[in-house]
Amino acid sequence: MEKVSYTSISKNEALSLRAEVEKKYADYVAQNLKLDMSRGKPAPNQLDMSEDLFTVISKNSDVSDVTPDVRNYGGLDGIPEMKAIFADMLGVKTSEVIIGGNASLTMMFDMVSRSVTHGVLGSTPWCKLPKVKFLCPSPGYDRHFTICECFGIEMITIPMKSDGPDMDKVKEYVENDPAVKGIWCVPKYQNPTGITFSDEVVKKFASLKPAAEDFRIFWDNAYCVHDLYEEEDQLLNILDECRKNGNEDMCYIFASTSKISFPGAGVAAMAMSEKNIAFTKKILAFQMIGPDKINQLRHVKYFKNLDGIRAHMKKHAQILAPKFEIVLDTLTRELEGLGVANWTAPRGGYFISLDVMPGTAKRVHKLMAEAGVVMTGCGATFPYGNDPDDTNLRIAPSYPSVAELKTASELLCVCVKLAALEKITG
Amino acid sequence: MEKVSYTSISKNEALSLRAEVEKKYADYVAQNLKLDMSRGKPAPNQLDMSEDLFTVISKNSDVSDVTPDVRNYGGLDGIPEMKAIFADMLGVKTSEVIIGGNASLTMMFDMVSRSVTHGVLGSTPWCKLPKVKFLCPSPGYDRHFTICECFGIEMITIPMKSDGPDMDKVKEYVENDPAVKGIWCVPKYQNPTGITFSDEVVKKFASLKPAAEDFRIFWDNAYCVHDLYEEEDQLLNILDECRKNGNEDMCYIFASTSKISFPGAGVAAMAMSEKNIAFTKKILAFQMIGPDKINQLRHVKYFKNLDGIRAHMKKHAQILAPKFEIVLDTLTRELEGLGVANWTAPRGGYFISLDVMPGTAKRVHKLMAEAGVVMTGCGATFPYGNDPDDTNLRIAPSYPSVAELKTASELLCVCVKLAALEKITG
Repeated sequence: MEKVSYTSISKNEALSLRAEVEKKYADYVAQNLKLDMSRGKPAPNQLDMSEDLFTVISKNSDVSDVTPDVRNYGGLDGIPEMKAIFADMLGVKTSEVIIGGNASLTMMFDMVSRSVTHGVLGSTPWCKLPKVKFLCPSPGYDRHFTICECFGIEMITIPMKSDGPDMDKVKEYVENDPAVKGIWCVPKYQNPTGITFSDEVVKKFASLKPAAEDFRIFWDNAYCVHDLYEEEDQLLNILDECRKNGNEDMCYIFASTSKISFPGAGVAAMAMSEKNIAFTKKILAFQMIGPDKINQLRHVKYFKNLDGIRAHMKKHAQILAPKFEIVLDTLTRELEGLGVANWTAPRGGYFISLDVMPGTAKRVHKLMAEAGVVMTGCGATFPYGNDPDDTNLRIAPSYPSVAELKTASELLCVCVKLAALEKITG
Repeated sequence: MEKVSYTSISKNEALSLRAEVEKKYADYVAQNLKLDMSRGKPAPNQLDMSEDLFTVISKNSDVSDVTPDVRNYGGLDGIPEMKAIFADMLGVKTSEVIIGGNASLTMMFDMVSRSVTHGVLGSTPWCKLPKVKFLCPSPGYDRHFTICECFGIEMITIPMKSDGPDMDKVKEYVENDPAVKGIWCVPKYQNPTGITFSDEVVKKFASLKPAAEDFRIFWDNAYCVHDLYEEEDQLLNILDECRKNGNEDMCYIFASTSKISFPGAGVAAMAMSEKNIAFTKKILAFQMIGPDKINQLRHVKYFKNLDGIRAHMKKHAQILAPKFEIVLDTLTRELEGLGVANWTAPRGGYFISLDVMPGTAKRVHKLMAEAGVVMTGCGATFPYGNDPDDTNLRIAPSYPSVAELKTASELLCVCVKLAALEKITG
């Protein structure tokens, strides 16, 4: 197929192209594929790499060098050794870290839930307010948006640009509307675009002058060490920047080892100012006696320090980078110059974001499903599941094999073309 | 010292006894003791017993017999194998079980928190109501009461009798006041009295006709398999009984392996009607992707089934029973017949409840502290930390050694006598 932009061809040319692409699509359908590119799950061979985590604590004497006894009750905010690693990872002090259970998502949900029931540092509980709003840079992470849905928090879509959210819009909302209490961010290797917020964007975040005293930036640094290449994207330290502006209470940082060790049995953490830490721990003390400290100690003994984690992440990158590349190479080869799609080329994280011809994303999703490939639900990357231009698709290349990804991404290109040609030829 | 009731002696006799007891007390103070009878923590040798839990999963192939992969994301309500064990333990169907993280306390807190933010099966969220009340049979478990405190729920003290809460009072409140939304119960080997609710009490619970549609019994079956002796206390199945009365949605049951395997790294669960399960899971799905499934599988492989757990509990009993006995023997030997104290003789659980002469519990606590023995905070077993008669002390015999317990309980008897004699002699 020649590389001529679909926007410049005649109707007859488009019809003949469409027939050609339809034939290709039918060939794929005949293969009865069964592939899943929907969720950012590590592949089994990535999980296999952490096998020694199982036995790094294998007898009672392996826990005896840490006091108090990690097997027993206690340790509300985690063991000091685990805090030290996350503090290093996030560039904060250990006194600014709380260790949680196995999921940062739960820590984020609970943080919102606590704000709903107890307010923030003495502010009115959000459940007592007539309206609470969050800003949602989009495309973004669906599980952030569903936390808002759960609590009836109104979501305002903010466009994502190549260096972060549209900060003019963010500033306008945050500084003028006291009902705006939060914003969701995945600042490094953003989900799903894979972009990293520029220094300028981070500085603009840090210098916000919120209309609401209880406005918080939910800084989900899920991919802080999840680089695909030696040269990693650099992200400015939000807590440092906020502190420079006298805004140190304005941000909550989240991270976890979910995509470092085991997604189902890792360790999560949050970091924030000591004032926020004290307030959070006060309520946390009612909710729990302490998270699983044995699993924390397992991670401490296995990774030892941030260098240990970085070395481990290099092994993940060796598995993941070729998967990203096969998808990106296929997109480039098949779609570049056709004027029907744009996509990001992330240098880390778990996703590639694909914008197809406006009004065709749902159709592409359906064509993929009918050919046996599951993709993330259409619209999931937008608040209320509503992609206004019906243009965005999230590709999760981690779980399938390289061979499966090759097939799936070639099929994806066929579907993108077909949906575009259907639209053009009407 | 002769066994003459303090209530029948003359002032002079009391003064001379007091001088005698003061001398004894001074001897203890001189020993510079440092003992802790405050929290229901298993002793290190109890934890040592679960050593093989560390290695029951020791390589990748050990998890390959269970699908989906326990290392990866997913499994919101737990793995079926773990549900089966808790279903057996609690006498419910697997479809009536949700597995949680490492703490039933967190599951209880979250259940209250969800009711505050989302109501119960479609009822008005409790945060939208002018007042929410809970009944608190007392003495009871302090961490239940502090959950109420956290959410500003008004607590109403209900007297604990030898067969359970005063059910006339419970019925009166529950059936007449629609603001009464819950009651806290530890039905077997109650914390701290160690008594088990009689069949009659359970049946009265099950046949309640609450004024509030969203009234729930929080049935914290923390000690369901925690027997000290072969012949265990029998507790009627609350869910079955509720079902007989068309009340199956009225109870939430909680349990965990905290005092079976590791307090800091066990597995918790809740059980309830399928309607309650569906409602709870709907909100849970916003909060988490799933609890630690590797740890669940560890427990499944280690205990295999309820019989495995019962066998393990026998080993705990061998360590715990002598500790309960040394305390009870000392109380009997030193205090029986003096008319200054009553106590329970539990056949399971983690606590002994001691009622000293009214108005002297705080004094006993202080005397113990000054002699170097930490006991549970005075009043902790009552709502708002307020023991109206200043009479109840909770003894937690599990953590100290038998020798330490002997000393601590002999000292306790001295303090009980001294405080009583101080009061008598004025």
